[in-house]
Amino acid sequence: MNNNKGRLTIPTDIDVVPQTVELMERWGADAVRDCDGTEFPIELRNTGAKVYKTYYTTRKDNAWAKANPEEVQQCYIMTGFYMTKGSTLSIPLMQGVSEDMMAVNERDNPKRWWEVIDRTTGEIVSPDSWTYQNGSVNVLNTTPYHEYTVSFLAYLIWDPVHMYNAIVNDWQGVERQITFDVRQPKTHEFSLKRLDDFLNENPYVDVVRFTTFFHQFTLVFDALHREKYVDWYGYSASVSPYILEKFEKEVGYPFRAEYIIDQGYYNNQYRVPSKEYKDFMLFQMREVASLAKELVDIVHKHGKEAMMFLGDHFIGTEPYMEEFARIGLDAVVGSVGNGSTLRLISDIPNVKYTEGRLLPYLFPDTFYEGGNPVKEAKENWVTARRAILRKPVDRIGYGGYLKLALQFPDFVKYVESVAEEFRSLYTKIASSKPYCLKRVAVLNCWGKMRSWGCHMVHHALYKKENYSYAGVIEVLSGAPLDVSFISFEDIANNPTLLQDIDVVITVGDGGTAHTGGTWLEKPEVISTLLKYVDQGGGIIGVGEPTGHQYQGRFIQLASVFGIEKETGFTLGFDKYNWEEHRKHFILDDVNTELNFGEPKAGMYALEGTQVLCTDNQSVQLATNSFGQGRAVYISGLPYSLQNARTLLRAVMWAANDEAGLKKWYSENYNVDVHAYTENGFYCVVNNTYEVQDTVLHLDNGKTKQLSLQPNEILWFEI
Amino acid sequence: MNNNKGRLTIPTDIDVVPQTVELMERWGADAVRDCDGTEFPIELRNTGAKVYKTYYTTRKDNAWAKANPEEVQQCYIMTGFYMTKGSTLSIPLMQGVSEDMMAVNERDNPKRWWEVIDRTTGEIVSPDSWTYQNGSVNVLNTTPYHEYTVSFLAYLIWDPVHMYNAIVNDWQGVERQITFDVRQPKTHEFSLKRLDDFLNENPYVDVVRFTTFFHQFTLVFDALHREKYVDWYGYSASVSPYILEKFEKEVGYPFRAEYIIDQGYYNNQYRVPSKEYKDFMLFQMREVASLAKELVDIVHKHGKEAMMFLGDHFIGTEPYMEEFARIGLDAVVGSVGNGSTLRLISDIPNVKYTEGRLLPYLFPDTFYEGGNPVKEAKENWVTARRAILRKPVDRIGYGGYLKLALQFPDFVKYVESVAEEFRSLYTKIASSKPYCLKRVAVLNCWGKMRSWGCHMVHHALYKKENYSYAGVIEVLSGAPLDVSFISFEDIANNPTLLQDIDVVITVGDGGTAHTGGTWLEKPEVISTLLKYVDQGGGIIGVGEPTGHQYQGRFIQLASVFGIEKETGFTLGFDKYNWEEHRKHFILDDVNTELNFGEPKAGMYALEGTQVLCTDNQSVQLATNSFGQGRAVYISGLPYSLQNARTLLRAVMWAANDEAGLKKWYSENYNVDVHAYTENGFYCVVNNTYEVQDTVLHLDNGKTKQLSLQPNEILWFEI
Repeated sequence: MNNNKGRLTIPTDIDVVPQTVELMERWGADAVRDCDGTEFPIELRNTGAKVYKTYYTTRKDNAWAKANPEEVQQCYIMTGFYMTKGSTLSIPLMQGVSEDMMAVNERDNPKRWWEVIDRTTGEIVSPDSWTYQNGSVNVLNTTPYHEYTVSFLAYLIWDPVHMYNAIVNDWQGVERQITFDVRQPKTHEFSLKRLDDFLNENPYVDVVRFTTFFHQFTLVFDALHREKYVDWYGYSASVSPYILEKFEKEVGYPFRAEYIIDQGYYNNQYRVPSKEYKDFMLFQMREVASLAKELVDIVHKHGKEAMMFLGDHFIGTEPYMEEFARIGLDAVVGSVGNGSTLRLISDIPNVKYTEGRLLPYLFPDTFYEGGNPVKEAKENWVTARRAILRKPVDRIGYGGYLKLALQFPDFVKYVESVAEEFRSLYTKIASSKPYCLKRVAVLNCWGKMRSWGCHMVHHALYKKENYSYAGVIEVLSGAPLDVSFISFEDIANNPTLLQDIDVVITVGDGGTAHTGGTWLEKPEVISTLLKYVDQGGGIIGVGEPTGHQYQGRFIQLASVFGIEKETGFTLGFDKYNWEEHRKHFILDDVNTELNFGEPKAGMYALEGTQVLCTDNQSVQLATNSFGQGRAVYISGLPYSLQNARTLLRAVMWAANDEAGLKKWYSENYNVDVHAYTENGFYCVVNNTYEVQDTVLHLDNGKTKQLSLQPNEILWFEI
Repeated sequence: MNNNKGRLTIPTDIDVVPQTVELMERWGADAVRDCDGTEFPIELRNTGAKVYKTYYTTRKDNAWAKANPEEVQQCYIMTGFYMTKGSTLSIPLMQGVSEDMMAVNERDNPKRWWEVIDRTTGEIVSPDSWTYQNGSVNVLNTTPYHEYTVSFLAYLIWDPVHMYNAIVNDWQGVERQITFDVRQPKTHEFSLKRLDDFLNENPYVDVVRFTTFFHQFTLVFDALHREKYVDWYGYSASVSPYILEKFEKEVGYPFRAEYIIDQGYYNNQYRVPSKEYKDFMLFQMREVASLAKELVDIVHKHGKEAMMFLGDHFIGTEPYMEEFARIGLDAVVGSVGNGSTLRLISDIPNVKYTEGRLLPYLFPDTFYEGGNPVKEAKENWVTARRAILRKPVDRIGYGGYLKLALQFPDFVKYVESVAEEFRSLYTKIASSKPYCLKRVAVLNCWGKMRSWGCHMVHHALYKKENYSYAGVIEVLSGAPLDVSFISFEDIANNPTLLQDIDVVITVGDGGTAHTGGTWLEKPEVISTLLKYVDQGGGIIGVGEPTGHQYQGRFIQLASVFGIEKETGFTLGFDKYNWEEHRKHFILDDVNTELNFGEPKAGMYALEGTQVLCTDNQSVQLATNSFGQGRAVYISGLPYSLQNARTLLRAVMWAANDEAGLKKWYSENYNVDVHAYTENGFYCVVNNTYEVQDTVLHLDNGKTKQLSLQPNEILWFEI
């Protein structure tokens, strides 16, 4: 494989055969794929390219789904809050939920699987006190002016991703694909045979691209076909009485709908996960892995490769959990929205290769007359490349409709350059770990399970409420640091874990899983962190780190960070520490006003803390020494190149190693340096769209002046 | 008494006797007073003016204090958090606290009255596991990397107010006055005799101005003589083993220091008060009232009047509590910082008269060469007058050093006009209740006890963190509304209470006493509020009303307000309701951008809520209908005349009575109208420093055009 060919997958369709051949040549693609709404042109099977075929494990067979309605996939849904004025109350279950998408499960015993809860008291209403009829639950013996909810099971009568694609692409008259549940006995057996048949019927296929396995992440539409709720990590649509009975047997305690419903918050990643929810996740992962292995084994039996799409029905296959290895997948492919999502794919262990689907997706929303797909492609590539240089995916690719791209010659040309650049850098770096200045660990309640995905609500989608936190993860995805993800539970169980960490980073709002919540009431957690910093460890807290009201503090590590939050409870205490010390190692490269993202109110510094930046009487950046260790507080840090440098400096300061910074280092923060010492290479990369001049610091104390063209990457031997 | 004389108290001193006589004449003063650091000139006793003499119940007798050190007033203090790395820990008690002000109580058994707490676990350290020596507590058998605090008793060896006055006025070489505790047996007996002696020795005194009774509100200075902690309502300095043993006997359960310490938050008004703290407050009020009555009785026995200063050592005498009436005071005097503090005084029941001490205080910080005391006096008068017109104090007065005022002839002239205007309006309105458009009740965890004082940390002092909330109370102090203050406990105990309320107002941040905290978990509280609004009641929530994380909601009355807060837990839910409906009854008078105060993030509207204003994707103003009732959400409302009008309109809208607004109403919101229908008067008052034109709406549907001079007040007969 040379730099002219390979490591690239492109989409195709029956109406673009000669063009596919031409682009395969020009871009050096060595694999072709279909996608939802396209067909693979059989003429291409002998081009020498690998052929990927998307396999829809849970849909595209409505005949089966309709013949086996009891094995259609189910989802737990909580209604809104309904108030009663009297002693009865009727709650319409599907109010606000798309009836095109979901249908109440009237088959399984509601009394066993549903829950009616008096949310005013938090108590379960006895199943004897309610009935179900015609889509509504009628609650009897209600207390006037209490509010009630119903948690119930609904069937996924329109697959969420199929529905999404149909809405976005405005597909008219399409048959709505029903999601069937491969975990259930008949469908299980059927699915094994179905896959075998598929492989027999499509002998030209080299790679079965599972989209995905069995359970869709939570995605609910409303009656107007608008998105109502989404959680890329949500387990709500992975349930059925069949599965839940198994769960009960295995864990040895009775299941409650509330374990999944979680007061209507559905255990999203901001919630501190309960023991029962974690039990359920682990149970699901074990079960899903076993069943997925059965399918993968069939693929292997046919001499084909099994690839998983990281998304859609991927619940239960979290690649950073142990069970994942058991599936025996050859590859994982995922969509690359930014550096974090790149690392989400490229860091996956226990597969032969990973593939990143770059943006833009070849869809009409970008490829319209007057559109500028090159701009989007450039931004995506520059952003992804920053992370690729830390840990590359093994392949890149595009999805969508190739014919749309053909109308944009500039785009075709740009992709050619991206493919070449990717192949070139991959050859140099794949076998070598890049030089890391420090080992950092992101600490939250999820740990490894949500590696790179913390603060992702819907994959890489921007959220005003969390871009100031997600920015930290994005910075880390391309930083010269060895990054791991650990949980408060990890610390509680294994305090020595922190011995291998230079700097702990905790990012988020108080009271959430990202900052610890009730875990902070556990003495073993707090004392382990105190000891770690006291003995020389570094810690960086962003937002409201360790924020949880308990025993006289909101910021539980207030003595470490030297920061507290004004919740009203400390208004009577005078605060004198407001002077800004703008001259600090962390700020040495700042040349425009730092952007701390969404304003944060009420953060104040304790005595002795060194305040660096404040805004509207709230601390934005501060440092504190604690024993032999050091702490940095940052109010928020959206992704930018200046902020990336600021965080890197904060890490070095917290690690008590300011002198160690200028090794494989560019004075201009718009330029990155990555050294692959095992391979004897280093590269210098301009992450901007302008020319950049910089002074490099190599590892021997020598410096070197350089000028780089926009986006340029230069390679040097060490 | 005519408009030329009376209802005015002025300060005097031995060095300004003729000037006092001249100003008494010119201002029409009918009472003279001394103050801290001045002496009453005996020559003035026959001027016909009443003579007030400040009586310091708890200080100005260091001989007594030093002879009875065990009866010096004590205060509970919590140290900071101290971490141990090993099995012992030494905690220096007075670290950060002024040793000029406080001294550790080494007399009473620390093992009985102090508490050492492992704040990492929340557990009390057994008294066997610590010792006290030389100002430090030595804790044994500590757990490494846990944090500990000590709650201990300290003597007030420098009276907080005396210390404050000494620092502010830079008194050099002054003897530090020790606070003695009149509640203790010897000092009790001594104090009765001391007062009797005082009255015998000062026969010319007409009014004994108690400053105040027995216990100073919490005020702690640090080692640098800076204010460290202040709580105008704090009970921390009202304790002693003598009192606490009585308390134990009365309530029947053992006392714990933590009941006062409250994790170091000292039960400030943002904390949801515990049962034990409320027990303690009520106990103190009863005891203080009984003892204060003994002193008042002595004053009366001498044929004099007893007046209480509302401040300083006023803890236990909350005038809005039942016990207060028992004291038998003739009068209360207090400082007027704004409308809220005016009403704090003028609404006091069960006294013969009230007096407001206007600003500026005649102190060098205002009366310096080049200073502008008239400006401050005008602002104070216009602000106070707004509230006076709703409920007048019976007298006004000034404090400080008269000789300073004499150097400012403009000031002397302005006070003359204020005094005349006050006497004139008092004559017209004192005997009549002004017309009220609606009955509103401010709801929080304190209720009546903190009438007009909610959100006051240190009297009328500005706080960035709460001016957006205190503004609501300030608006109410001068609004044509009948205002009461109720607590969540009131509602729980007496749901019918709300029948007499048109609009409930709840103001503050979530998780605080102002919005309910754990009281919102009580079904009787929530269901009473739901029923009240459903049946036609109005409710206005400001900030994070009913904010408390519980059973799937942060805003517990989310269905009423139609508002929720994004805490992270609902990031997965799509929010579509962002369109601003700027055309609304509430906004009809807004002519400049509304000022909602400190930015509030993450407030979003539920479906069906009418959003009026948003900022940076957070709702600032919204309305919602609930059953037959109505709710208004406001993110914050600093005091301004435009905001006063906006709140009044919100009240009328919430009360479902838009048509009722234009009765005794000025179209220009800078002008107020107050009608005293019983007396047959109404007044029109310009609250600004510019000429204002307006159209009045009288009660008969008739309108009237008017132009008012700056600050002008015009009177008309009905």
